[in-house]
Amino acid sequence: MRILGIDPGYATVGYGVIEYDGRRFRVLDYGAITTPADAPFEKRLLMIYDGMGELIDRYRPDHVSVEELFFNTNLTTGIAVAHARGVILLAACQKGVPYREYTPLQVKMAVVGYGRAEKHQVMQMTQTMLGLSKMPRPDDAADALALAVCLAHSTNSLLEEQDK
Amino acid sequence: MRILGIDPGYATVGYGVIEYDGRRFRVLDYGAITTPADAPFEKRLLMIYDGMGELIDRYRPDHVSVEELFFNTNLTTGIAVAHARGVILLAACQKGVPYREYTPLQVKMAVVGYGRAEKHQVMQMTQTMLGLSKMPRPDDAADALALAVCLAHSTNSLLEEQDK
Repeated sequence: MRILGIDPGYATVGYGVIEYDGRRFRVLDYGAITTPADAPFEKRLLMIYDGMGELIDRYRPDHVSVEELFFNTNLTTGIAVAHARGVILLAACQKGVPYREYTPLQVKMAVVGYGRAEKHQVMQMTQTMLGLSKMPRPDDAADALALAVCLAHSTNSLLEEQDK
Repeated sequence: MRILGIDPGYATVGYGVIEYDGRRFRVLDYGAITTPADAPFEKRLLMIYDGMGELIDRYRPDHVSVEELFFNTNLTTGIAVAHARGVILLAACQKGVPYREYTPLQVKMAVVGYGRAEKHQVMQMTQTMLGLSKMPRPDDAADALALAVCLAHSTNSLLEEQDK
């Protein structure tokens, strides 16, 4: 099963592509789609949309795992991120790839097994689980990989339930 | 000048197409793109994106006028609307049509000349200005026409300034 994790944003969209056979992970790629701050907003949306399309065409994921949006901090930023998330979901839909969404709490539970885990704990555990020699950069890419792991684990639980 | 006004939403996207020659308005079309509540969210985004593309192809507007987003009421709804607004701006950008955005206050000022105007006053004045025999339905279409008028008027002010 191939999973594309996406950490949505409008300046930086983190991505991580993994394969999971039910036991082991293999990392195929990770990185970020970035958009210049001085570009018109709609052009940034277009860059994100095109970038998503290219990632899906290149890696043909079975699933997209994308973070759910929360507006704890900055509402204006949140509105802009939601715009970007809209074109991200659109690109996945047009390419026929289903998505699932997870809260930061769900990601922490899936990766660290502890909902109050710190960000650096999630990143370190992601690195360990994926057998990466160094910490993925930027942080958005690490977050995207954690989202991909989260979807893999939830699928695993489903498979285990089926086996019972 | 041909203007496509858009009142963004994810269940209903109001639209209104007008022509403006600097003095008179002509209404070409108005209505709404609607998406079924039981459709998956990403399919609704796709319907909105496709609907926007069809409107732009059919009417070839010079400008899109779209409402700015505010989150005074329901944050969850607002997040979903921002997703929809993202694919609306994307569609306009891909078709090469520039957009301007206006707050409800700017629309009231442009249409009624009074920032605290009630919604029904804006709708009635829009109907009168556009010479429509009946009130446009749904409300979202009336809002979209008002947005188109707002852009037309702001362009007028610019032209007047140039003439001085």
